[in-house]
Amino acid sequence: MNIITPKPSRAGSVDFVDGHTRLYGILGHPIEQVRTPETVTYELRRRGINAIVLPIHVRPEELDDCIPGLMKIANLDGLVVTIPHKKTITGHLDRIGPLAEISGSASVIARSKDDKWVGEMFDGNGCVSAMLRRGVELAGKHVFLLGAGGAGVAIASTLARTGVAQISLQDPDAGRSADLHDRIGKWFPHVVISRNAPSLHEIDVLINASSVGMLDASRIPIDIKEIPARVVVMDAIMDPDRTRLIALAEECGCATVYGREMLDSQIEVVSDFLLDSRDLLAADIKFP
Amino acid sequence: MNIITPKPSRAGSVDFVDGHTRLYGILGHPIEQVRTPETVTYELRRRGINAIVLPIHVRPEELDDCIPGLMKIANLDGLVVTIPHKKTITGHLDRIGPLAEISGSASVIARSKDDKWVGEMFDGNGCVSAMLRRGVELAGKHVFLLGAGGAGVAIASTLARTGVAQISLQDPDAGRSADLHDRIGKWFPHVVISRNAPSLHEIDVLINASSVGMLDASRIPIDIKEIPARVVVMDAIMDPDRTRLIALAEECGCATVYGREMLDSQIEVVSDFLLDSRDLLAADIKFP
Repeated sequence: MNIITPKPSRAGSVDFVDGHTRLYGILGHPIEQVRTPETVTYELRRRGINAIVLPIHVRPEELDDCIPGLMKIANLDGLVVTIPHKKTITGHLDRIGPLAEISGSASVIARSKDDKWVGEMFDGNGCVSAMLRRGVELAGKHVFLLGAGGAGVAIASTLARTGVAQISLQDPDAGRSADLHDRIGKWFPHVVISRNAPSLHEIDVLINASSVGMLDASRIPIDIKEIPARVVVMDAIMDPDRTRLIALAEECGCATVYGREMLDSQIEVVSDFLLDSRDLLAADIKFP
Repeated sequence: MNIITPKPSRAGSVDFVDGHTRLYGILGHPIEQVRTPETVTYELRRRGINAIVLPIHVRPEELDDCIPGLMKIANLDGLVVTIPHKKTITGHLDRIGPLAEISGSASVIARSKDDKWVGEMFDGNGCVSAMLRRGVELAGKHVFLLGAGGAGVAIASTLARTGVAQISLQDPDAGRSADLHDRIGKWFPHVVISRNAPSLHEIDVLINASSVGMLDASRIPIDIKEIPARVVVMDAIMDPDRTRLIALAEECGCATVYGREMLDSQIEVVSDFLLDSRDLLAADIKFP
């Protein structure tokens, strides 16, 4: 036989994944629009962890069948959970935090040292942290909250825990308003919670937690022409950066907090929870 | 209130994963030693695919519970399967290729266009392709195969399909030898298959498919002092690069084929199968 000398191998390799890589994911439907894979992977690697946050696309009707299988992957340590899975996921957890209990939803789940799964709702945390970091006082204040959906519930319960005195709600869906009203009332009986629109002169902070204005800078979630300059205005919408509500507030001389400001503290608190949970028994995990 | 001006965001991002990334994995236990994540991810990206091959650690007793969940991840397109899951995985497939049927094991599974899962055993392909690429003639030849475990079965069935005339087997485990003998005999009745050690003067090719010599350059899978120079010797072991069997063969003037030579064609054929399956109905998938 005429045996040929071997050619050098063409096999190359990438440097961002190997057999030791720990897995995290963001679970959603649809999934293409999420930004968690690139930002939280960056944060985990900045902390020296060989980990990757994957987009994990699971359809709503498949979630209950999929989750038990995912939880059996021994090197999968946690998941960020997004629309439409935040409520359903709580049924698969061994322990949930107080904000998950209040809202009936979880936005992050993690595996504990004793192989349990714990979850908490962090969606209100980014919004409230962004305001606190900017020096907005919340303790004892009156907040007018626009939107009583998932984000509204998460923000309201985080505000209540932070010590606001009063929350007024506005949502065109009366059922959602009533539900949020009851949840906050049950867990925070000292917070005055109202479903009547307040005068803007009575409030200290105005927060948009509805989707009105998202991807559309011509829409505004409340029909107003003026805002008193002493009111702080926050919009949880990240795109566009400057919503019509924010633009109006700035024209009126109000201090404003942008949706994008939620991102930093959100990434940090989520990374802390994912990493800290690995080293703790489920019963010992402290929720922020 | 004294509202502070926002600081610029610290949120960075990595460029190797985003919401559009398609997921692949290698399923095994243990998992840390695998090289598939970095090499096959490199190959998929070389072909322009936004994809990543993950290490997926599943314990043997969890596999049957885990796989149905994994298969419900809509952006997971395929898995490489390694020890100890190759046999068990076949029970979860809608269609298997001929080499998977002969060996009762699959090394790669993929999702078809019609959302079925198909699998094939490619473990013999790398070995046989490495020899063919080097000009080793196999059609009509007599191969002496050391080792009748998973790798041995995969290599023997691929050799039989390539047209060798005779395979002689050696394995200290008589049950494994008998099993391989029966499998090849059933599917390739024209191939002479023998469980008696041949004279080295009768054979054309000597292949080590056992693990003897792995990570230990002092061990040799067959007790010989000399090999006729006309015999081509291949060792499927990749570490060390030059096993004691290869060293002896080279001292005797034999042409040798190294384990690492299997890698290139293995990566190529696995990538082809993973990518091609996405665009085909399960019934139309052609096995190489």
